[in-house]
Amino acid sequence: MDGIAEVGVTGLAVMGSNLARNLARHGHRVAVHNRTAVRTRALVDQFGGEGTFLPAESPGDLVRSLERPRRLIVMVKAGAATDAVIDEFAPLLEPGDMLVDGGNAHFLDTRRREAALRARGLHFVGTGISGGEEGALHGPSIMPGGSDESYQALGPLLEDIAAKAPDGSPCCAHLGPDGAGHFVKMVHNGIEYADMQLIAESYDLLRHVAGLEPAEIAETFRAWNTGRLDSYLIEITAEVLAHTDAATGRPFVDVVADQAEQKGTGRWTVQTALDLGVPVSGIAEAVLARSMSGHLDLRAAAHGLARRKRATPSRQSTSGFADQVEQALYASKIVAYAQGWNMLQAGGAAYDWNIELGTVAAIWRGGCIIRAAFLDRIRSAYERDPDLPMLLTDPSFAEELDGAQDDWRAVITEAVGAGVPVPGFSAALAYLDGLRADRLPAALIQAQRDFFGAHTYRRTDRDGVFHTLWAGDRSQINAN
Amino acid sequence: MDGIAEVGVTGLAVMGSNLARNLARHGHRVAVHNRTAVRTRALVDQFGGEGTFLPAESPGDLVRSLERPRRLIVMVKAGAATDAVIDEFAPLLEPGDMLVDGGNAHFLDTRRREAALRARGLHFVGTGISGGEEGALHGPSIMPGGSDESYQALGPLLEDIAAKAPDGSPCCAHLGPDGAGHFVKMVHNGIEYADMQLIAESYDLLRHVAGLEPAEIAETFRAWNTGRLDSYLIEITAEVLAHTDAATGRPFVDVVADQAEQKGTGRWTVQTALDLGVPVSGIAEAVLARSMSGHLDLRAAAHGLARRKRATPSRQSTSGFADQVEQALYASKIVAYAQGWNMLQAGGAAYDWNIELGTVAAIWRGGCIIRAAFLDRIRSAYERDPDLPMLLTDPSFAEELDGAQDDWRAVITEAVGAGVPVPGFSAALAYLDGLRADRLPAALIQAQRDFFGAHTYRRTDRDGVFHTLWAGDRSQINAN
Repeated sequence: MDGIAEVGVTGLAVMGSNLARNLARHGHRVAVHNRTAVRTRALVDQFGGEGTFLPAESPGDLVRSLERPRRLIVMVKAGAATDAVIDEFAPLLEPGDMLVDGGNAHFLDTRRREAALRARGLHFVGTGISGGEEGALHGPSIMPGGSDESYQALGPLLEDIAAKAPDGSPCCAHLGPDGAGHFVKMVHNGIEYADMQLIAESYDLLRHVAGLEPAEIAETFRAWNTGRLDSYLIEITAEVLAHTDAATGRPFVDVVADQAEQKGTGRWTVQTALDLGVPVSGIAEAVLARSMSGHLDLRAAAHGLARRKRATPSRQSTSGFADQVEQALYASKIVAYAQGWNMLQAGGAAYDWNIELGTVAAIWRGGCIIRAAFLDRIRSAYERDPDLPMLLTDPSFAEELDGAQDDWRAVITEAVGAGVPVPGFSAALAYLDGLRADRLPAALIQAQRDFFGAHTYRRTDRDGVFHTLWAGDRSQINAN
Repeated sequence: MDGIAEVGVTGLAVMGSNLARNLARHGHRVAVHNRTAVRTRALVDQFGGEGTFLPAESPGDLVRSLERPRRLIVMVKAGAATDAVIDEFAPLLEPGDMLVDGGNAHFLDTRRREAALRARGLHFVGTGISGGEEGALHGPSIMPGGSDESYQALGPLLEDIAAKAPDGSPCCAHLGPDGAGHFVKMVHNGIEYADMQLIAESYDLLRHVAGLEPAEIAETFRAWNTGRLDSYLIEITAEVLAHTDAATGRPFVDVVADQAEQKGTGRWTVQTALDLGVPVSGIAEAVLARSMSGHLDLRAAAHGLARRKRATPSRQSTSGFADQVEQALYASKIVAYAQGWNMLQAGGAAYDWNIELGTVAAIWRGGCIIRAAFLDRIRSAYERDPDLPMLLTDPSFAEELDGAQDDWRAVITEAVGAGVPVPGFSAALAYLDGLRADRLPAALIQAQRDFFGAHTYRRTDRDGVFHTLWAGDRSQINAN
């Protein structure tokens, strides 16, 4: 006999609970289950009034309580816990049932799990969910992969609870088979790392070059948030910078230890980009900067190195400098996002996912951490030209880059002179300057490789693969 | 009955042949074998006069021809071919025999293979060999891992054929158990990528900012090679830049296609560094720059972006500028090598290899691609202080960084203004400026993380882990 719950959620930590509540609040009958039943009871006791929750005592209970084909969302820690839950539930499910993994799994794990469950007739749907705890409750950005068939059954439910973009469309779309959803979520997080690093560099410059106080910088960010940088991350930056620590009366940002932690998706993004051959330098520098901040021993040892007398900030030029920093931030952001989209394109091609690049921008407009007006511009760019080679070459972004570049270069120059580290700004500019160059010194590198390792080279003026007899008479031979 | 060959080599492509010849030239009786016997015959026919070669027709022949305990060097393509050769030979070997993998294996594969063969009583010795084809013949830098016992038997042989440092000591040392040798070789290659990228940026600046011709730049590098930059890579850069293409009469570097290829060890280095949490931004930017150079489609699409009128090179200031570039190159090189040594230290700790940091510098002084006078200075630094927190803090390197920094900053400023990409110089400077900073904007990042994901933070003024109720009254709570 079929159960009566439309959907089940197992794993009721904050993300799982909030997702279940979101479903219930939207009128869906939600079966809820947790390994330790106390959490299940707590959820129903505390939030039972929000909708129809059907508590399940055991995996069997949970499965029996679901309508068929069953839709079961797994919200447990990525890794071994996910495999354990799959092993527990898969034998209880029937062909056509859907197991949705809403955790931050690596997309290669999702591919492995999807293949294994597909062989048993089950749909395994790796699904990125962004927006944190609040997002899960009020509307996250949802990035499902998995089969077309599974999305037929899950789409309406997920689109219902997803965030809505300013134009009212749901921030959820089927992104492609097997690991596509978790891949897209991973790239989202990588871009998030880059964006946060660029914001941090902007803050650092306003603080240490312009000499502004956090509360003043908060005002700057607040102003930026009304323009083209309008975004959740800029908004919360202003909130953080305006916050005063109650215990000390000091700016909150000054009492927070300056070690940025990470949970792994940024690292995965860079590692995967390296495998795909996509140069995501903006994301890489952001991940490395976080990693460096945590090396307290090295930082202490390096403290006295290459000391610079910082120029005394000249307050009269502050507002002009802030405008320049805005240009640098915006231009660097365009580059970092363009690198992320290159990666979406490369991953989509490598794994035959056929990821729609404009759709990804569309479902990131709301709910997720990088939500921003900017995303709608990316969506538009791919709508205008679905075959856009890359984001930088969209005419409107290209024009903005062109307009920003003088200030961007000036800001980096200022930072380099003052000794303020701007790895993100610098990497973004170097990427643009490299990509647009007539000739790269990569020719010298390839020639060196031929010299010491007979790795051969191609020529600019004819086809073929060649090697120079460097240890001999230095004549050129055909090498293929 | 024991065979009479002291050592065997299987896999007689250029690297394997040259290593076998090197052994024979040093008076060792070398059994040689190749999957296709024609190569074995060709080696003996062509180079039989160089020493005592014992050709083997089959794996069984090869094994029977060796003295016990057997020393068998495998020189095949890294990956599946290595496993195939191991599977073929291991059953023919006896406890105490040594299988030496001289290919460019990933150190994690080496760990796996070593553990499997150790269980069968065999010594598997993953060994990095650097120096290319010429090095294999005339004396490479050799980086063996594996058991202490295996090095007792192999060390004298390997040290005999290794390159000799200027002080006469062999460029070979036992680096630690299992994968230590291949790990060190991987980091060597990563550093090599960074060094080549920095040289390429220097060339690009001399060409496009100073307006020098390749032949003139060759002279500059030749001059640099007599100073503190004295190294094989600087030497061959001068050779490459001085070379004229016979077919066109143009500078050779101008007819080489500007796409730098890679074979994977640079990528592995960055991926491993990310797992180890070591910020190797110099190596990362070098790997990404190569990757970018190959994206011809994107480069073509980006060609017209953010065009800059390059300042007309002012020839009268050329020599002053070249001196500044030398400072920038040298300072960036110190940083890139320091990052590499941080990685050696972190890998050694993570895998319990106890890698001697000064010893690595010592065996890279000759034979390998990055051989340089510089390496002896690194060796000295660790001799003076084996507990040096990092290379940058060695007093003599610190002093040089301090002396170089004004020119280094000036060169980056020049490049940023002229639109010449200097990702390596910029990343190195940003690393130094970040590491020595009093405060990093990582504090803002960690605060943002607490805001959107309740990821908590530490404070500068007291122990503990805290969370601010951002969506509530913004009070602070204890989070552990």
